[in-house]
Amino acid sequence: MSLRDEAAELDMRDPLAGKRAEFDVDPDLSYLDGNSLGAPPRGVAPRLAEVVGEQWGRRLIRSWDEGWWDAPERIGDRIAPLVGAAPGQVVVGDSTTVNLFKALVAGVRLNPDRPEILLDAATFPTDGYIAESAARLTGHRVRRVPVREMASAVSSRTALALVNHVDYVTGELHDLPVVTEALHSAGALAVWDLCHSAGAVPVPLDAAGVDLAVGCTYKFLNGGPGAPAFLYVARKWLDVFDQPLSGWAGHADPFGMTPSYAGGTGIRRGRTGTPDILSMLALDAALDVWDDVTIDQVRAKGLALGEFFLRCLDELVPDADVVTPRSRGNQISVRRPDAKATMGELIARGVIGDYRPPDVLRFGLAALYVRYADVLRAAEELRALR
Amino acid sequence: MSLRDEAAELDMRDPLAGKRAEFDVDPDLSYLDGNSLGAPPRGVAPRLAEVVGEQWGRRLIRSWDEGWWDAPERIGDRIAPLVGAAPGQVVVGDSTTVNLFKALVAGVRLNPDRPEILLDAATFPTDGYIAESAARLTGHRVRRVPVREMASAVSSRTALALVNHVDYVTGELHDLPVVTEALHSAGALAVWDLCHSAGAVPVPLDAAGVDLAVGCTYKFLNGGPGAPAFLYVARKWLDVFDQPLSGWAGHADPFGMTPSYAGGTGIRRGRTGTPDILSMLALDAALDVWDDVTIDQVRAKGLALGEFFLRCLDELVPDADVVTPRSRGNQISVRRPDAKATMGELIARGVIGDYRPPDVLRFGLAALYVRYADVLRAAEELRALR
Repeated sequence: MSLRDEAAELDMRDPLAGKRAEFDVDPDLSYLDGNSLGAPPRGVAPRLAEVVGEQWGRRLIRSWDEGWWDAPERIGDRIAPLVGAAPGQVVVGDSTTVNLFKALVAGVRLNPDRPEILLDAATFPTDGYIAESAARLTGHRVRRVPVREMASAVSSRTALALVNHVDYVTGELHDLPVVTEALHSAGALAVWDLCHSAGAVPVPLDAAGVDLAVGCTYKFLNGGPGAPAFLYVARKWLDVFDQPLSGWAGHADPFGMTPSYAGGTGIRRGRTGTPDILSMLALDAALDVWDDVTIDQVRAKGLALGEFFLRCLDELVPDADVVTPRSRGNQISVRRPDAKATMGELIARGVIGDYRPPDVLRFGLAALYVRYADVLRAAEELRALR
Repeated sequence: MSLRDEAAELDMRDPLAGKRAEFDVDPDLSYLDGNSLGAPPRGVAPRLAEVVGEQWGRRLIRSWDEGWWDAPERIGDRIAPLVGAAPGQVVVGDSTTVNLFKALVAGVRLNPDRPEILLDAATFPTDGYIAESAARLTGHRVRRVPVREMASAVSSRTALALVNHVDYVTGELHDLPVVTEALHSAGALAVWDLCHSAGAVPVPLDAAGVDLAVGCTYKFLNGGPGAPAFLYVARKWLDVFDQPLSGWAGHADPFGMTPSYAGGTGIRRGRTGTPDILSMLALDAALDVWDDVTIDQVRAKGLALGEFFLRCLDELVPDADVVTPRSRGNQISVRRPDAKATMGELIARGVIGDYRPPDVLRFGLAALYVRYADVLRAAEELRALR
C-alpha cells in the first residue's frame, strides 16, 4: 500500500476524524503548528459575539455578577481533568510568564531556608528569565541542570525545581512522576511548566503529587493568540500559598475594598487583577471541543500521527535528522542546517510548522484536527526541498 | 425652563452628541457606570469577528508577523496622546495590578538607597496590596499618606510615591503637576495610577515630568471587561528601566531564545509574556472612537454633565450629600447610609451607577455617550427613593 493510500485509510478509520469539523481550518493547509498556536474552534466567534453584544452590551456592569467574576475558577475546573487535577486547584488568568513568577516566589516561600532554585537547563527561555528575576528578589540562586540530572543534583539546599514537561525544541516528554518523586525525596518542591503538554498528553498532577504548575492555553488547548494561562496549586498548599502578585481580584473580600491584603479561600488567591473576560470566555468556548473526547484519545492519535510521520520521513527523507526521542509529546522536530529557510519554503507550499534556533524544524501534531494526510504532505514537501 | 427642557436643549446642542451612535448602549438605560466598565463601541464586535475568522483562522501563526507582535506598542501609541505622552513610552498588556508591580519594583531600583515608598492613603486597594508585596520583596517600607500631605511627607528617605490621579471613591482629581514637582524636589520618583483619569481628563505626563504611570483601559477607554492595562515609562528612564516581570516578550531578541534576559530597546522592555491578542485588538477597535475627538472636548462635556447633575441634585434632592470636591474627574459621588440598597433600586429603575463601601453611590459621566437626560434621570430616581 502506498503512503498516500495508507494516509487515506488512517484518516478514514480515525475515531477523532469528526472533531476536525469543529475547527475552522483551511482544508488546503497542512497546519502542523498547533504546538505554537492552536487553530480556532468554530464555537469561539459566535461566543465572542454574544459576550460583546449581549453580556457587555446589554447587561453591562451587571455581567460581573452573572458569570464573569467566577470565570477564572470555573474555566480552571474545565482544564483540571486534562491535567489530572481534582476541582478547585486550577485558576485561569494572566500570561504563562506572570504565573511562573507567582509560582516561583510562592514556591520558595513554601520551602524556606533553602537557597537554590534548580532550573531545567533546556527550558523555554521565559522560565529562566523569570527564575532569575524571582531569585534576585528572594535571595536565591538559580542552577541550570539537565532534567536527566535533576535527581542527582537536588539536595537539601534546593527549595524547588522548575521543569518543562515537554521540551519545546526537541519535543522530549520528561517523566513527571519520576522527577517529582526525586525532588520530593530531597525535600524540594516540584514546579512544572505544562505549556507543551496540556491538551497533548495526560498530565498526572494530583497522582504524582506535583506542588505547583503553570500552563498555556493557546497551544493544544486552542484558546486563541496569547490566551490566558493557568496556574495549578496542589490542594495541600492552597491555604498557605503566598504569592507576590497579590492583587485585589485574589482578595478574600475583593469588593470590601479593605486596605490590607488577605488572600481568598482556595485557588482564588492565585488571581491578581481584574479577569480579562473577552479572552477568557473565548477560551471557555474553545474548551467545548473537549466535551466528548478524553486526553487519552488525543494522546493515542497524537502518538499514531507521530509514528506515521516518522515512517513517512524514513521512506521519503531517509537522511532527516529527527531529534525527537521515543518519549515525546505531540511534536516531531527535525534538525537541518538551513532550517529557517526550509520552514519558509514549507509554509509557502502550504505546510505550516515552525522554526526554533539554531536549526530545528518543529511539526506539531494537534490530534483534534491534524490529518494523517497532513503529516504525509509535510514529508513529501520536505523531500521536494532536499 | 424646566430641568427636562434644559436637559433636552443641552443634549441637542452637545457637540459630542453624535458620538453616542458609535456605542452600543441601550437607549432605555441611563448608564452612569463608565468609570467602572465603559460601554461597547460598535466597532469592537466586527473587529473581533475579523481577528478570529481572518487573522487567527486564515493566517494562523503567520499573523504574529502581520501585526500581532507589534500591537502592544502600536496601541500604546494610540493611548499616548490621551495621557500627554509622546510616542514610544506607552505599552499595552497585562492587568493594572501586574503593571503596578512592574512600575513599583523598577521604580525603587531607579532610586536606590531610599527605604520608603509613599502610598496615597485613599488609594484603590490593589495599589496598596501590590505596594506591600513589592516592598516586602525589595526591603522597603510602605507609608500611607493623604495626597494633600505628600509634599510635606516626602523626604530623602523616599524612593517613590504611588498616587491615584482621581480618587476612586470621591472622584477627587489630584494636582498631578504640583504633586509630581513636590516629589521631585525631594528626589523621589512620581508613579501615578491613571485608572480613573485616562480617557476622562487631560493627563500631562510628559509636561509634568512624571516618571512612571499605569492605567486602565476598560473604564473611560471602553476596551471591554478586564481589557489589558497600559504602562508608561518616561523617555529618560527607558534605557535603565529594570522590571521584575522580565519575560520573553520584552527581550531584545525574543525569538533568539537565548538563556539570559536582555531587555529590549525602549518601551518594549515593559512587556512580559505573549501579548493577549483578542483583548488587545478589541481595545484597538474601541480606541477608534477617539479618532475625531480630543480629550479636551471630552473633559469639557464631562465637567458640564457634572455641573448639570449637581444642579439637578440641588433642585430635586437638596439634602444629597455630594462628596465629590470641586476639583474632580468625570465622576460624582453621593454618600447615603443605605447606599448599597439604594444602588440596587436605581439599577432596577434603569439608572446604572455603582456602590463603593461603606456608603457611597458613584455616578460616572463618560462624556462620549452619557446624555444630559441621563443625569437628570438619575437625580429624579434618587428623589423618588428618598
